[in-house]
Amino acid sequence: MADLHPGIAVLAPLLGTWTGEGTGEYPTIEPFGYLEEVTFGHTGKPFLTYTQRTKASDDGRPLHTETGYVRVPSADRVELVIVHPTGVTEIDEGTVSADGDDLDIEAASTSVGLTGSAKEVTALSRSIHVTGDQLSYTVLMGAVGVPLVQHLAATLRRQSG
Amino acid sequence: MADLHPGIAVLAPLLGTWTGEGTGEYPTIEPFGYLEEVTFGHTGKPFLTYTQRTKASDDGRPLHTETGYVRVPSADRVELVIVHPTGVTEIDEGTVSADGDDLDIEAASTSVGLTGSAKEVTALSRSIHVTGDQLSYTVLMGAVGVPLVQHLAATLRRQSG
Repeated sequence: MADLHPGIAVLAPLLGTWTGEGTGEYPTIEPFGYLEEVTFGHTGKPFLTYTQRTKASDDGRPLHTETGYVRVPSADRVELVIVHPTGVTEIDEGTVSADGDDLDIEAASTSVGLTGSAKEVTALSRSIHVTGDQLSYTVLMGAVGVPLVQHLAATLRRQSG
Repeated sequence: MADLHPGIAVLAPLLGTWTGEGTGEYPTIEPFGYLEEVTFGHTGKPFLTYTQRTKASDDGRPLHTETGYVRVPSADRVELVIVHPTGVTEIDEGTVSADGDDLDIEAASTSVGLTGSAKEVTALSRSIHVTGDQLSYTVLMGAVGVPLVQHLAATLRRQSG
């Protein structure tokens, strides 16, 4: 296993596989609960890999999945590049800070790409907080005529470092 | 294992893990050879998952990796949504056709997203051809002031269905 690239040392608290529960809401849909698994990994290069999948709390049917990378272009700055199988690409840029095992990321979309058949997503915003072996996040979304509002929130526990 | 979603039956020839060799070139760099592994998978939902990684032919050092999804929004149409750890998101749209085990995809970028620290990529175009257990592809790229020209070409063999 390669060492973590020193250029992304600030991201070390994210590494591992995380599982837990979340809740989804949006003005156009019924609220829902989900079970989630998130993995942040690395290859020795200056980015983290990110994969995520959720299933419904009620019947276990697969819900969403997404994947991408986390970059640190300069001190205290973070770039998330994420792709959704719904035909959406997402670039979020913002700040990252870490203190020991704790980490905070605040990032907002600077680019959203849509395939011709995708729903109209206009903006996204993500907050990620790690404290020890607990990761919590929120996702705000603007889509289908609704401005940027709360969409997802989850709290996960680290399963492996 | 879920059945392949009938909405993407045309993509069945892509499924599996493929390995082989490719060559890269661009007006701004020295030509290079690479070894590649590509996997197309599915979850039962109407998209394929796509992951790719390459290493240098000469010394085996890791080169590129990318990941994303393949969608079929309507008959004979394809959408590729891909993210690069270099800070680039890519949406390519075009045509797909299949005849038995053979498949042809021709797609060109309709959206390229760049993080603030990414190199200036302006356009991409991908051709993918499957004949039995052989997959060949080409990638054209426009970037850093160069128009859309040949960048990558590889021929891969299916390792597992």
